[in-house]
Amino acid sequence: MEKLKVGVIGATGMVGQNYIRLLNNHPWFEVVYVAASARSAGKTFKEAVAGRWLMEDTLPVQLENIIVEDATNVAAAKKHCDFVFSAVEIDKQAVKELEDAYASNGIPVVSNNSAHRHTSDVPMLIAEINDHHLEIIPSQQKRFNNDKGFVVVKPNCSLQSYMTPVYALIKAGYPIQDMIVTTMQAVSGAGYPGVSSLDMVDNVVPYIGGEEEKSEIEPLKILGDIRNGEFESYKGINISAHCNRVGVIDGHMACVSLKFSERKPEIEEIKEIWNDFTAIPQELDLPLAPKQPVIYMEETDRPQPRKDRNLDKAMAVTVGRLRECNVFDYRFVGLSHNTVRGAAGGGILNAELLKARGFLNRQV
Amino acid sequence: MEKLKVGVIGATGMVGQNYIRLLNNHPWFEVVYVAASARSAGKTFKEAVAGRWLMEDTLPVQLENIIVEDATNVAAAKKHCDFVFSAVEIDKQAVKELEDAYASNGIPVVSNNSAHRHTSDVPMLIAEINDHHLEIIPSQQKRFNNDKGFVVVKPNCSLQSYMTPVYALIKAGYPIQDMIVTTMQAVSGAGYPGVSSLDMVDNVVPYIGGEEEKSEIEPLKILGDIRNGEFESYKGINISAHCNRVGVIDGHMACVSLKFSERKPEIEEIKEIWNDFTAIPQELDLPLAPKQPVIYMEETDRPQPRKDRNLDKAMAVTVGRLRECNVFDYRFVGLSHNTVRGAAGGGILNAELLKARGFLNRQV
Amino acid sequence: MEKLKVGVIGATGMVGQNYIRLLNNHPWFEVVYVAASARSAGKTFKEAVAGRWLMEDTLPVQLENIIVEDATNVAAAKKHCDFVFSAVEIDKQAVKELEDAYASNGIPVVSNNSAHRHTSDVPMLIAEINDHHLEIIPSQQKRFNNDKGFVVVKPNCSLQSYMTPVYALIKAGYPIQDMIVTTMQAVSGAGYPGVSSLDMVDNVVPYIGGEEEKSEIEPLKILGDIRNGEFESYKGINISAHCNRVGVIDGHMACVSLKFSERKPEIEEIKEIWNDFTAIPQELDLPLAPKQPVIYMEETDRPQPRKDRNLDKAMAVTVGRLRECNVFDYRFVGLSHNTVRGAAGGGILNAELLKARGFLNRQV
Amino acid sequence: MEKLKVGVIGATGMVGQNYIRLLNNHPWFEVVYVAASARSAGKTFKEAVAGRWLMEDTLPVQLENIIVEDATNVAAAKKHCDFVFSAVEIDKQAVKELEDAYASNGIPVVSNNSAHRHTSDVPMLIAEINDHHLEIIPSQQKRFNNDKGFVVVKPNCSLQSYMTPVYALIKAGYPIQDMIVTTMQAVSGAGYPGVSSLDMVDNVVPYIGGEEEKSEIEPLKILGDIRNGEFESYKGINISAHCNRVGVIDGHMACVSLKFSERKPEIEEIKEIWNDFTAIPQELDLPLAPKQPVIYMEETDRPQPRKDRNLDKAMAVTVGRLRECNVFDYRFVGLSHNTVRGAAGGGILNAELLKARGFLNRQV
Repeated sequence: MEKLKVGVIGATGMVGQNYIRLLNNHPWFEVVYVAASARSAGKTFKEAVAGRWLMEDTLPVQLENIIVEDATNVAAAKKHCDFVFSAVEIDKQAVKELEDAYASNGIPVVSNNSAHRHTSDVPMLIAEINDHHLEIIPSQQKRFNNDKGFVVVKPNCSLQSYMTPVYALIKAGYPIQDMIVTTMQAVSGAGYPGVSSLDMVDNVVPYIGGEEEKSEIEPLKILGDIRNGEFESYKGINISAHCNRVGVIDGHMACVSLKFSERKPEIEEIKEIWNDFTAIPQELDLPLAPKQPVIYMEETDRPQPRKDRNLDKAMAVTVGRLRECNVFDYRFVGLSHNTVRGAAGGGILNAELLKARGFLNRQV
Repeated sequence: MEKLKVGVIGATGMVGQNYIRLLNNHPWFEVVYVAASARSAGKTFKEAVAGRWLMEDTLPVQLENIIVEDATNVAAAKKHCDFVFSAVEIDKQAVKELEDAYASNGIPVVSNNSAHRHTSDVPMLIAEINDHHLEIIPSQQKRFNNDKGFVVVKPNCSLQSYMTPVYALIKAGYPIQDMIVTTMQAVSGAGYPGVSSLDMVDNVVPYIGGEEEKSEIEPLKILGDIRNGEFESYKGINISAHCNRVGVIDGHMACVSLKFSERKPEIEEIKEIWNDFTAIPQELDLPLAPKQPVIYMEETDRPQPRKDRNLDKAMAVTVGRLRECNVFDYRFVGLSHNTVRGAAGGGILNAELLKARGFLNRQV
Repeated sequence: MEKLKVGVIGATGMVGQNYIRLLNNHPWFEVVYVAASARSAGKTFKEAVAGRWLMEDTLPVQLENIIVEDATNVAAAKKHCDFVFSAVEIDKQAVKELEDAYASNGIPVVSNNSAHRHTSDVPMLIAEINDHHLEIIPSQQKRFNNDKGFVVVKPNCSLQSYMTPVYALIKAGYPIQDMIVTTMQAVSGAGYPGVSSLDMVDNVVPYIGGEEEKSEIEPLKILGDIRNGEFESYKGINISAHCNRVGVIDGHMACVSLKFSERKPEIEEIKEIWNDFTAIPQELDLPLAPKQPVIYMEETDRPQPRKDRNLDKAMAVTVGRLRECNVFDYRFVGLSHNTVRGAAGGGILNAELLKARGFLNRQV
Repeated sequence: MEKLKVGVIGATGMVGQNYIRLLNNHPWFEVVYVAASARSAGKTFKEAVAGRWLMEDTLPVQLENIIVEDATNVAAAKKHCDFVFSAVEIDKQAVKELEDAYASNGIPVVSNNSAHRHTSDVPMLIAEINDHHLEIIPSQQKRFNNDKGFVVVKPNCSLQSYMTPVYALIKAGYPIQDMIVTTMQAVSGAGYPGVSSLDMVDNVVPYIGGEEEKSEIEPLKILGDIRNGEFESYKGINISAHCNRVGVIDGHMACVSLKFSERKPEIEEIKEIWNDFTAIPQELDLPLAPKQPVIYMEETDRPQPRKDRNLDKAMAVTVGRLRECNVFDYRFVGLSHNTVRGAAGGGILNAELLKARGFLNRQV
């Protein structure tokens, strides 16, 4: 199979670099195009990221001398790319317009940005949870007046440490009514330079702008249905989130208390539901899909960010400490890798799903 | 006024060192006696703490050459001390017996240990909350067969970041029914060497042995009443705690969601209740009492451990981020200094209260 | 004695805030005037620092409602201030011109900036080392065409952890020929937000722009003489510096190897020289002068930044681990508090020395 | 080729776990035997490491149920192993006797311990530097009275961040006379629990017991010759080391100043020497040999521990910041991964070299 030709828009930023890193040697996709701000355009990629390459792996050799294009040059992208990953770090309205421009020109956009998360015909995808939301793409394409381009987005990284375990329970027939969540989030979530070391050494910051709202609202769309070509939010769950920033490089952790709507399963049943949970990405054996999307750890003090964030290519959600709650039904701890599962890795998995579903095809 | 003569039992450990540090130049109390394990006994205090003095202030000069006694030598303590602070770090049963031995011999014991926290006639004191629990001392003394000795203890450090604010609300006529708390606790809470740096660099540990149970049960005794010479637990509140260890030196922080039992105050009223809250220690103008026991910070991202833990001699509880909760009524963040307010400082304040109430007197 | 009226120019930045904090309740100086960039001008000081007050102590109440002036408004400063501390964070050339403007208008400037460090008639002062450099002020005033204004500066914070101990040896008759220094410097040295937490968690950065050059060249001026109204660099010492950034809040540490020019003292003699060292600030009993400017610690693993940086009001240099060097004569470790001794505290001590020497007087 | 059967003695400790991790899927070696203290003996390996498995990768499935043997049971090891890796964490004298017992019984020992580093006929090996030291093995085997068993050791982890680059220069004809080194070492070097978090949060500890002596003396043996069946130390270089512990998980960094004995190369020539340096492990294409053992980074602020420690399977030494030194000839920064290159990985590379040289053969 010839690989699909991929562009990374916003390739010089932190999420963009993660796309570059994770797409190296990908079996289905090949990065042939990188774009960034006008400031970087015209430079080689190596020059453009000089002094700000943040990955532990070195820049892939074959991309060192590729010329960075201007992100706003949609025509150039169209010439080279079957689809693009969008990881631009500009303001929300500008992202929206840019992603619309790509889609209108027939280029599928797999986005890491929040701009289109609440656009009524744009799927916000966690591949293990709401793959059926892809059904909305044709009506979106109608809006864009072509049958190739579209936009899909992924949700905020903070909620990925508990949404898949929570969905697994709902899917198993145990809907959840109330959920109080406290997150301890990694500094990589804020990009680079992001959080000052004066705020993180010997400290915790109990506030991340906009993060609590996202953690509370986005799950409702993800769990929702499509009605008349638009998404309709799930009404069955109330979420309250406390979001904290801690001095961890990668890995968002969440302490969760939850109350079931109706009957509640036993502890052992929950562990089984989690350990046995698989979904479409596993069935389709997508390249970046974790073998086991939810891993329950029996150790009393796990999961922990540094020790567990990289399990199964950093794509699994690890959970632990499931126990009764004095106020609700149960408590547990969840962890997911925010810049892999919660960002570039999640985006690539979304693209793999789109490809498997026939939404991404050779165009150039 | 001549100062009361004080012994610190367990003076070489971390909490003991904090007692030594905080009692330096105290207006009412003077350390004249230090005791520790048999291993340290017979050495000068300076020798005994060589290589393991953990305070930022240096060892008070006047105590450098005092000879460390064996903590089990109650007779020696009786000769020199009007009362003692107990900060021994031995197993629970041994602490219990040791503290009983001191009390039986007529020596008041102000303890930092957990051993007697659930003894039915021992007050577990937060000076601003349950000073009336001191009324039980006479019946305790009857058990010890003398009218001088007794034991009072302080609760676990983790709950001090929210118990005073919560009590202020209850006292103002707003009882609380449910509370879900997630703590992020400092490494000093585990003593020295305590938590390995391999567990704290780039990491969070979502478990502290025994801490969640203490956080849930101890408040019920503190809020309880005395009936027939014994404490009876408060029944009005359910608490569920998630306790985490983070790479912070001092300062336990808590994210709290709470639901009132009956009516609920407005946000502005809660802030007023907190900022205006004072209690007996303030009325009596006790030396180590914070002027304002609960300080509400209006900044969106405060309190933070490193920046706020030292407010008002590190004896105040700082709170912030009061806002509505999607599931319960309100959410907020609380912070208190675990080794000062939550340990030695809290113990000294308890002793000051006991002195003001006439329970501590010149004996030697 | 009526206090001198002081302005802090650049009061909203990190160093400026430290001036505000350390000058609170100062016996000789009273802050009556604060200035900052045009952006802050016109606001109350409280408003101007809202969300970026970085000190552990709260903003002094009496300064909350003072109106921030524009730093370029020299005339306003002249109306209110007997002298100013300069802590503006703008580019070097702009600092130079601004400080010249204040001095030309008859306002003494005690500066924390590097702009004038190598101006030939501006003293770069460590109060314990080169107080005699103040003799150059009259010839500087001639240049400014008035007999009141002048500029004095302090050296870079990184060299303060070893310069005073090294000077003490030179002064005792043991000149040093070669010195190789490796610093591990705190993040507060880079201001706020300064160093990204992504560079400091689980990491060390072996480079700080311009810092090595400063560490090597500035000592030569400090140790130099005045000749024909200009400073002449000391030629007797070669310094090579490796400067690293580590995840420490405050406190620059240095590992030093040194070789004496001629004869070398014994280890015990060096310790005595250090512990006994005092200079003009101690003789004059200046308010912020440390009682003992160099403190030798006998413990095998000290000094350490968090444990020792605050000794003697954070104004002492602590040294330790003096031992033979396989290549040069001796090795040792030095530590000083970079934002107190190395910045605002050092500046205030300089002002105290200037006041004691008659260079600062009532003007308004 | 059938794999050699390998035992890991001390398999439950931190270095032992790294051996287990790195030997998983090794092309030449297969772990068939694990031993530890009497306390662990008889348990399955999974049980023995429960709650103290420190690796990010999970325990290899095929080793979960292997029964841990007692490390002192040499006969059992002899029955199962062609050779063993020694990573026991017991006192030095006991290690010596234990490793001698294995060798006397005909079992080759590739050791991570320091016990035999200065035994006169035991090679202390860095595979890229002194592979010719293996020539001494026959005379060592004479001492052990058999022609199969022997002991080889690896040097201390701290010196590996500069020894290979330094050796590359010597080998290129530029001997070095003086070297002053300051290390900033990772906490994993102290094992688990090792360094207290109270010593690492917001702190640096300028002392590591015994580390400076090792850093100064061990290179002399490594660079030395064999004379009359014994090693003779190299006399051409003086090293002075300052060793510091910093809050980094993995990766020892060193700031080095050096002076050549005779002529000195230009900066560009040194970079070429480093980037072009290869040795026997590269020639033999050993499985764990880094392709490029010394990697020069041109970025002004590299290498950095977290970002660069994992280059080339964490087996390369990265260097950077080569520049002139005011006191000696040049300065640079070196970095190597202490628990991989500096411990288990270095040991495995030594074993690969021994195998390639015919010293390790099928015995069982």
